[in-house]
This record gives sequence, structure tokens and C-alpha cells, in this order.
Amino acid sequence: MLPRGRPRALGAAALLLLLLLIGFFLFGGDLEYERPRGAAALDGDPPADRGGHNLSDCVPPRPLPPKCELLHVAIVCAGHNSSRDLNTLVKSVLFYRKNPLHFHLVTDAVARNILEMLFHTWMVPAVGVSFYDLEELKPQVSWIPNKHYSGLYGLMKLVLPGALPPDLARVIVLDTDVTFASDIAELWALFAHFSDKQVIGLVENQSDWYLGNLWRNHRPWPALGRGFNTGVILLRLDRLRQAGWGQMWKLTATRELLTLPATSLADQDIFNAVIKEHPGLVQPLPCVWNVQLSDHTLAERCYSEASDLKVIHWNSPKKLRVKNKHVEYFRNLYLTFLEYDGNLLRRELFACPSPPPPGTEQLQRALAQLDEEDACFEFRQQQLTVHRVHISFLPHEPLPPRPHDITLVAQLSMDRLQMLEALCRHWPGPMSLALYLTDAEAQQFLRFVEASAVLSARQDVAYHVVYREGPLYPVNELRNVALAQALTPYVFLSDIDFLPAYSLYDYLRASIEQLKLNSERKVALVVPAFETLHYRFSFPSSKAELLALLDSGSLYTFRYHEWPRGHAPTDYARWREAQTPYRVQWAADYEPYVVVPRDCPRYDPRFVGFGWNKVAHIVELDAQEYELLVLPEAFTIHLPHAPSLDISRFRSSPAYRDCLQALKDEFHQDLSRHYGAAALKYLTALQQPPGPA
Amino acid sequence: MLPRGRPRALGAAALLLLLLLIGFFLFGGDLEYERPRGAAALDGDPPADRGGHNLSDCVPPRPLPPKCELLHVAIVCAGHNSSRDLNTLVKSVLFYRKNPLHFHLVTDAVARNILEMLFHTWMVPAVGVSFYDLEELKPQVSWIPNKHYSGLYGLMKLVLPGALPPDLARVIVLDTDVTFASDIAELWALFAHFSDKQVIGLVENQSDWYLGNLWRNHRPWPALGRGFNTGVILLRLDRLRQAGWGQMWKLTATRELLTLPATSLADQDIFNAVIKEHPGLVQPLPCVWNVQLSDHTLAERCYSEASDLKVIHWNSPKKLRVKNKHVEYFRNLYLTFLEYDGNLLRRELFACPSPPPPGTEQLQRALAQLDEEDACFEFRQQQLTVHRVHISFLPHEPLPPRPHDITLVAQLSMDRLQMLEALCRHWPGPMSLALYLTDAEAQQFLRFVEASAVLSARQDVAYHVVYREGPLYPVNELRNVALAQALTPYVFLSDIDFLPAYSLYDYLRASIEQLKLNSERKVALVVPAFETLHYRFSFPSSKAELLALLDSGSLYTFRYHEWPRGHAPTDYARWREAQTPYRVQWAADYEPYVVVPRDCPRYDPRFVGFGWNKVAHIVELDAQEYELLVLPEAFTIHLPHAPSLDISRFRSSPAYRDCLQALKDEFHQDLSRHYGAAALKYLTALQQPPGPA
Repeated sequence: MLPRGRPRALGAAALLLLLLLIGFFLFGGDLEYERPRGAAALDGDPPADRGGHNLSDCVPPRPLPPKCELLHVAIVCAGHNSSRDLNTLVKSVLFYRKNPLHFHLVTDAVARNILEMLFHTWMVPAVGVSFYDLEELKPQVSWIPNKHYSGLYGLMKLVLPGALPPDLARVIVLDTDVTFASDIAELWALFAHFSDKQVIGLVENQSDWYLGNLWRNHRPWPALGRGFNTGVILLRLDRLRQAGWGQMWKLTATRELLTLPATSLADQDIFNAVIKEHPGLVQPLPCVWNVQLSDHTLAERCYSEASDLKVIHWNSPKKLRVKNKHVEYFRNLYLTFLEYDGNLLRRELFACPSPPPPGTEQLQRALAQLDEEDACFEFRQQQLTVHRVHISFLPHEPLPPRPHDITLVAQLSMDRLQMLEALCRHWPGPMSLALYLTDAEAQQFLRFVEASAVLSARQDVAYHVVYREGPLYPVNELRNVALAQALTPYVFLSDIDFLPAYSLYDYLRASIEQLKLNSERKVALVVPAFETLHYRFSFPSSKAELLALLDSGSLYTFRYHEWPRGHAPTDYARWREAQTPYRVQWAADYEPYVVVPRDCPRYDPRFVGFGWNKVAHIVELDAQEYELLVLPEAFTIHLPHAPSLDISRFRSSPAYRDCLQALKDEFHQDLSRHYGAAALKYLTALQQPPGPA
Repeated sequence: MLPRGRPRALGAAALLLLLLLIGFFLFGGDLEYERPRGAAALDGDPPADRGGHNLSDCVPPRPLPPKCELLHVAIVCAGHNSSRDLNTLVKSVLFYRKNPLHFHLVTDAVARNILEMLFHTWMVPAVGVSFYDLEELKPQVSWIPNKHYSGLYGLMKLVLPGALPPDLARVIVLDTDVTFASDIAELWALFAHFSDKQVIGLVENQSDWYLGNLWRNHRPWPALGRGFNTGVILLRLDRLRQAGWGQMWKLTATRELLTLPATSLADQDIFNAVIKEHPGLVQPLPCVWNVQLSDHTLAERCYSEASDLKVIHWNSPKKLRVKNKHVEYFRNLYLTFLEYDGNLLRRELFACPSPPPPGTEQLQRALAQLDEEDACFEFRQQQLTVHRVHISFLPHEPLPPRPHDITLVAQLSMDRLQMLEALCRHWPGPMSLALYLTDAEAQQFLRFVEASAVLSARQDVAYHVVYREGPLYPVNELRNVALAQALTPYVFLSDIDFLPAYSLYDYLRASIEQLKLNSERKVALVVPAFETLHYRFSFPSSKAELLALLDSGSLYTFRYHEWPRGHAPTDYARWREAQTPYRVQWAADYEPYVVVPRDCPRYDPRFVGFGWNKVAHIVELDAQEYELLVLPEAFTIHLPHAPSLDISRFRSSPAYRDCLQALKDEFHQDLSRHYGAAALKYLTALQQPPGPA
């Protein structure tokens, strides 16, 4: 601190400082980086080196980021689409941030489900998340008539001072449709500009809406001039609570609603009306912190001057399709984060040590114990990888549950997208599909679904994105993600290259009823598997047709040529004749497609890449004494495809095969440990000559 | 400027300013963004809000970027691998930049070829590029014995003051192994800190190398303390030239080489020796501008304090595999730009209007003329898309030319990578392959090749990456990219799903010789096409074996079931019996695989997605009077694969088929315009019932 008690000298100094600082801003601000040497700015380089600055160019020096201070961000988020938007917003914030962050998320049940899983699996250091129940807060705003497309969710921002923890003094409030192009700490630093009276920081509205002259009888809510936009808000929660904010906005809203029928712009109308009444509450923020890209935006006045845009706001219901001659420019900034690999944001803040996210330490110990020289290092590393998971990536409205309902469970990556339409035609019931994608591929997938009438029409198909990381395909982890999200009492554990008989969904439910199964009974219904080698073939509509195709050589039993052991126990000969379900016994390498109760054992995630991933699951079912019942009218048919990269590696690499063998051995050791002598038969079966998978 | 002539008052003011600025740095620097209000810093908010700063935390305000000033960057780049590194470096620079840039690239012929095409097709606004011939400059440094892994290329930095244009006063010099994490204008702004005498800005070396105590008899070149690292250099070229830099470094180097056998760290040893002799030349830069990640780096001293790293330098020959406990952190920053979609950097600098890159205006006019309501809008937009092209993505050493040599030309995307090994086994000759990939996929492709012994062993396969943009597969543009890069007199125009007969390469060259063809003669040698429906099948080693498989129903003539017209004119019946080449006539929808002279007509890029892309090319050959000769022993076999997304769209969308028809019509109109009455037969052929492709 400066010595007190010399007010006059200080006053003079302050005045001089002011003068010098003005000069400083005008001529370039030669502050040194290690020690103050401001005076040097006055006798330094020729002005030619500084470019042609004028006053409006003078972006001031960036304020000090409050180093390692925890910054708080509140966001209201509801539904599947906003959850995707939030993911993109968070990626943009994390990309530039250098401070620990805490996200306060006001969510509905759908968004909470998605985002809890997303943040839990994301494991970003120095990021905390709290959830607040939107339903609980709704009554506080649901009385307000509102015409804005954000519905009630926009209005929810009004109640944040009461909803957030009482000891939270400041928060940045963001709409889900904003994208950061700079460090959020710079925004947080603007709190320092608030006077004692100011409680809310906002950017001026970049449209003429509140001027009230857009059309005849256009009557917007009252606002100061153009008013302010509430896509980005700095809130002094402590002062708002002290000032009785809860009463204040309700009084204003109630009064305005006496003459106005409803809010047009949700919370924004009410914030503006309050500010019009109490102008001292607002600290205007620089326009770059909320560049608004609505259809008739005046934002160009802002961005054509500023070289450094900070936050872009897609505040039109058209979002990226908004009409704006520079939309490509902004779209590129947005796409950057839409497609950004979120895994790369799992980086520590060196300068701000913070406790690691839950589970990280254990994981890092396990990773540190791996031996890089181990031939199976890649497998073990892949097994330990925690994949970021975005469940219910697209809107999903499960139908009311039917009795004995069955969810088809499968996993895929980009190269199998073209299977989805056919699968939807063959399986009219619910599906839970895990997709292994990069962030960029997830967007391609989204466009693919939007472009498909067949896929868009289905509300009972849930797509769960597991973000790619590591060289080996985590097939069993993917299956487990899809399985965990199935909502029906039964699941059909399928693979993406199979098309079930058109009647299978109905037939399976009828069979479960006829067999009087219940979800406690350990039964696995076997769906016999076949394959065609032709891309275009006429799918059999009955067992009789299927048998005819089989006899004519157009169809084969699945992997008849390469690996008959995988399905031999199904006993195709018996199936030809069978009229009723029949029981079969487990045998080594059996890997049928089965329908089981939803609470069946999970797949063993140690099997990554190609090989033994389903076999191990069937062993586990058998060890847990599931009865295997083959259904006489059920069938599913495998369509041809090129070999996957993983199967190519398996075939070409002896090391790959050796690792698979090591994994099998470890699996059997665990099996013995778990099931004791009963697991002996699996080891005995192993003694038989090993097959390819 | 401040009034002169009051030196004492100014002196006192400067002193006070200094004091105040110290306080200012200590307590957080509440500079306002719109007008100076520095005094407010002294009576503002409670210190609690600023976090616990201490002196070392005090990152000073960012200096003013010289708005719209053109910044110059020089980089030495040679060979395929450095060109890939340069691409990543440039992406990181462009991501954060807000100024027009000019890159001065000192390159060998390989890098120049690659980078000229890359920048030409990248079309980034406000980016200029100049090339300088590395070979011409070599004699100036080739006399220096050097042990560093960068070879002569590192040393080349010494001669930049003479090599760059004489009117260029300042330049930032970068190694290709650095990654930016901030705006390069901030680095440029550090030129302003140079005193009148200083000519070179450098960051201190972050290792103990130059202390000379790493091992017994370790004798490094002389340096000031730890010396400086030359991965990032600010050069005052004007002053260097004035000071006789060319003589200066040569004198020092010659003198040191009297007692030292060679440079260990290339140019860095010489820069340091000169600086040791003339310490006044150097302006030390903050450590964050060159965070050095070598094996025994001391960089943690830098990055554990600074929250804002600016440039990362992978200055170990191990690069990303360097041993450093924080390497994951830095790797993530690097991967960000390695995988970043470079197309997103094609964004204007609003605040700095600059002339558009060549061709852009024409393109934008054409795009603006498209009608968004046109059902074929997507096709027309895709046709106008300029794809960024990175030729020779991997090292490629063409073998000495053989007579009548033939390059296999094909294109693919990620879903066909698994074909490459088999293709290499079947075609021992040169190949030119275009790959349609995202930036991230290009890295997966690189790892795929590195992991494959078969692919790594081949130096005569050139891979050209065309970066993905737009929804439709630009099949013919890809073919043209691969075709343009073929270096042999003949090309075999194939598709990636085909495996040629093992003998085909030799047989084709022998046939060309026997037929006494020369590359002026317009002949297209037809390679008859077959298909198998099995993934695993024993590839026929002779025509006799092939015919046996055909007779047994294991092989078919290509698209026998779906589209026999495509290959019917090849006349398979005649081929069975043929002993010598025979001539066939063009017929509608004919699309054989052919060998033609390299200067054959290009593919028509209007055909994007699925359909008619090869057919149109054969029409063009016929219109130009190419003779079609079927070779009696040649064959190629199509392997099965799942239908592509494009073919799925074609089959499911009537609009897609209508657009293809519109494209065909336009193609025929152009044909008539070009070939007149001779093109009538193609229109007549059109009257026949249309087929699927």
C-alpha cells in the first residue's frame, strides 16, 4: 500500500498519473513484462512502429485475471438440445480459461441426467458442478405470461439470487447459445468496475427492438434506450439479495403486466423494466462481451471496430441459419468448439493447483503402474481410459411402457451409420444405441439424423455418444453404456450389422408372455443368426422363406465359413424343425444374440478391439446360471461389410492375438476367483484347440 | 506527446508514476476498458476480490496489438515431415491472430511444392506467403560442421537478414516445432522493448546445457549464463544489416571452430557465441514465449508460475514422446491444432479490411448466384467448394523412372484404409492416392501408416490429403488431385475397392512396350473388372484360375447383378478366349478401368457424391478419340464392402436422383458445345432407358 497522510502529494500524483495514462493509452502502452518501466514508453521507438492507432482502436490493456480465484457461472438448461448447446459453450469456456470454475446448472430432469454423466466422465481438473432443480423453481416464474421461444427457462434467470447458495456473492449468468472467444476471467474482472450501487452488468442490446418503432403499434417493454441483452449477465448476488431483488422484479413485472399482455423476450423484458426504473443498478459492459447475431442485428457496429470479440450470442431462434452477411465468420468460431475434442480440455491448471476430479488419482496410479514395454500396453491403457459420455445426444421420448417391452441394444461408429434406417424399419420398438464418435463426427451424425425422414420420425431410439479416445475400439464399454440406458424390462443384445426379422419385436414380447417369464427369472432367449453375402437381397418375411433361401445357398448360418463354433450350440438343424422353444447348453466360444432381463451381467470392458467380447459375456451368463432357450420363429440376419480396422489388425498382428490370449487368461482367472469350482468347465473348455475369436 | 521543456516536473512525475505503477501491479490493475480511470484502482473494491496476488503473479496488462499492422514471420522448412509440422504451427498462429500476416518460407523443392499448394487452396484472407530457395542459400552455411538433428536447416536462420527482402525491417523467426497458444501480435509488440542497440530478441535457454557441467569434458559453445534458445527469435533485420551481421557471425563461428569441432545445436551455438561477445545485441524475452520441452527441461520454473503460456517448443528429437511429467498437458495444446479443422481459419479480419485471396471474389460471386431453393443447391455448392489440399502428406521418394512406368491412381476416405495393405501387395509399382479426410482423420491415417510394416516400407506411394468440406463426396476432384500428382508416363485409373492381378503392373508395362505405344498415342487399355462377394477368398494367380472361379460361381463379372451395362462393352465372352488385345467400341454407360497416358482428360468435377462420375470420363475419352483396347491377360477384382453413405442417399432420395439427371444434362450440353455434332451420339445414347448410374 502507498503511505497515507500525504493527500496533496498523492492528489498531484494521481492527476499526473491520469495525464500520463492518457498518453500511455494514446501511444501504445509500453508496459514491460517483468518490472514496471512505464517511463520508457515516452522515449522509446518511433511512432511508425505502432501502426496507425486512433482513440477508438485503443483496446486497453487486459485487466489482471484474478489468479486462481474460483469463478462461478450459472446456466439454465433444459432438454436434449440445450444440453448439447451447453456442452459446446462449456468447451469454449474451458478452452480459454485459466481459473478454477464452478458451474451452477439449473436443469430439468433430462438435462440433469445428461450433464451429470457428461461432467462425471469428462473429469476436467479444477471444474466443479452443482445442479439445481428447475421444477422446484418454476412456480416462481410460471405466473408470468411469456411469448419468447425460450419459454419459462429464460425467466428462470430472474430467480437465481434466491436459488443459488446464499454465500455465493457473484456469478456470471450465461445463455446456452453463447460461445466464448476469450478467457472468462476477463469478464469476471469487470466486476471490479461496479460502483457500490451497481448490482448487474449487461451489454447494450444490439437491435432497435426496445426503441419501439419496428412496426406500427409495436409496444415493447420499457427500457433505457436500446435496453440491455441478458444473454451474458454479471450478477452481484450479495447486493441483489440485500436490495430485495425478489420483491423488486416481481413488483415491476406485475405493474407492467397491467398494461402489457405478456413478456416478448422473457427475463430480458423484466430486467430492462427494472433497470429503467433503477438505472443506478446497471454497469454497462463493453459490446464485445455479447455480440448479438439476431436477424436485424446492429452488432456490426461493435465487431467492425473491435479486433477482439469476446463472446458471440446466437440470439435468434434460427441460430446458425441466421441471415447476416458475416455469419460465416461467426459460424467458424462456433464450429471450432462444436467440433473441438473435449478430451483435450482435461488439462491441469499448473499455476493453480486444485484437487483432482474424483477418481483421477486412482486412475493415474493405475496408468503409472502400466509397463510401457508390455506388449499389451495399448490394451491395458485402453481399458483404463475413461471415455466422455453424452447420453441421449438427440431428443428422445420413450413411449409409455408396454408389457414385456424390449429395447434393442447395439453400438456403432461412423462407418455403420447407413445401417440405422434399415434397422429402424426392422425393429419398431425402443432402441438404445451407443455411438463411438469424435466431437466432430457427433455433429455429422446429428446432420445425418436430421436429413433422414425415417430416423427423425423415431422418438423411441436413444443415441448415446461415447467420445473416441485411444487406438482400440472399446466395444464392451460401448455395449455397457447402451445397456445401462435401456428403460424396458428386457433387452435384445444385438450388433449393428444385423437386421432382425420384421416380426421379431412383436414375436419376442409374445414369447415372453407365453413363457410366463418375469424379469427375475434368469433366462436368455436365443435369436438364431444368419448371414447374407449380398448387399441387396430380399429379406425373408417368414421362417419358411428364410429356410428356402438357406437351401438355395443365398443365406448361410452366421459365420458358417469362418467360425461355426460361435453359433453351433444354437443347433440350426433342430431349429429348422422346432415348433416350440428348446433349451441348449453352453459350449466353448458360444456367442449367440440373446434377449435377457435388463439387469443382466454387464460386458467385461477388458475386451477392447476385436475378439472374445461377446463370448465372455455369454460365459458370464452361463456362470450365473442363465437358461438358454432358442426361439423357434426368431431370426436375425447379418449383412456384409468390409472387415473393420480392428479385425484387420487382429489378422495381421501376432502381438494382437497374443494380447487377446493374455486377456482371456486373466478373464478365466477372475472367473475362477468369482465362481470357484463351478468355473472349472470354462478352463477345461479352453484346453480345446483355440479358435480365432 | 507530453510537453517538453519541463524536465524536472516530468522527472518527478515519472518517479511518482513508477511508484504508482508498482502499487498498481501489486494490487491488481483496475484499468478500465473505455477510458483511463487508473486512480480508481486505489479506492476500489476490497482486496478480497483480487485473489492472493504476489509479485510473481503479476502478469502485466497485455501490450497493445499494433492494429492491422502486417506482421512478418520467417520459417525454414524442408521435406515432408517439416511441412506437416509447419501446417500445425500455422494453424496455431492463425487461430489466435488478429493481424494480417506474411509468411516468409525458406524451403527445399519438396516443401515448396507441398506448401504452395496448401496455401493456394487454403485461401485464408489477410495471409501472404513468399518462398525462398533453400538450395541457393545452402553454400552460406554448408561449411559449418554441425551435429544437431536439424542438420543444415537450423543453420539457415543465420542468413535470413541477407535472404529476406532488403526493405523488410523486422521479422519473427520460428522453428517448425513450436505451437502458439496466444496472439502472435503480442510477441511482435515486444519489438517495442528493444533499445536502440538491441537487434535480436530471445528467450533464455531452459536447460543447463550451456553451463557446461552436464558431464565430464562437456564443452558447449560459449554463451551468457544458460544462453538463449533460438526456436523463437525477434530479428531487427534493418539493424542487423547495418551492423554487418553477415560478417559478424561468420567471424565468431570461424574463431570458435578453431577450438571446437562442430556446432552441437546448430545456429543456436553461433547465435549464443555472438551474443556472448556482444551482449548488448540481445533483448531477453519472457520465458512464456518459448517454453522448451526437451528431456531435461527446466521449463517447469516458467510454466508453474505463469498462468498464460504463449508458445510451446518441442525442442527434443523425441517431440511428443519426450519424458516430461506434464507432457500430457502440452500434448493436448499441440493436438488441439494438429487436429483443428484448418478450413475454419478461412475467416476475414473484420477490423482490418484486406484484399481477398486470389480467386475468392469470383468464387463468392458464383456462390452468391446460387439459388438456395434450387433442389440441387447442395450439389452446386459442393462443386464450388475449394478444398484445402496437402499433397505428399507422408514422405515419398519416387523410384528412378522405369520405361513405360504406370502409376495406380485412386481415392479413398477413412472407411477404406484397410484396403491399403492389400493394394500394396497387389501393385508393386508407384501409386498416387487422394484421401478425403478431416484434419483429425489425417492424423489417424498417419498413425495407421506408421503402424503398418507393409505401408511404411513403401516409398513409392504418394498420399495426398484433401481436407473434407461439404456434405457430398467430391469423387472426381479427388481423382484429379491424385492424377495431377502422378509422375510416370502412364496412369492406371482404378478404384480403392479393387485389387489388381498380382502380375498386372509388370504385364501392363510389357503390353505398352509390345504395342509400341507412346504417351502421345491416344489409347486406353481396358483392364477387365470382376467381383467377389466373399471377404476371404483366394485371389486367382492367373487368368485360368480366374476363369475357373468364374465358372464355379465364386466370382462374377463386375456388377453383373446390379448394372451389367457398365462393363458389357468389355465383352467378357470374347475376353475368355482372347490371346491378343482387341478393340472395343464405346457404348452408353460404359465405365471400364483403364490405363492411359498421364495427360489424359481430367475427370469432370461437377459429379459429386454417387453416380456417373466415371461414365462421364469415359465419354470424354471417347469424344477425344481414345482407342479402347482390352488386354487379354489383365484383370482386377472388386472386394465387397457395405454401401457408402452416398449410394444410400442416392437409393433413398428421389431428389438426389433428379439432381444427378440435371448434372448429366448439363454435362451433355457442355459436350455438344465442345465437340459439336460429334457429341450427338452421346445424346442419342441418353434416349435409351436410363440406368441407376
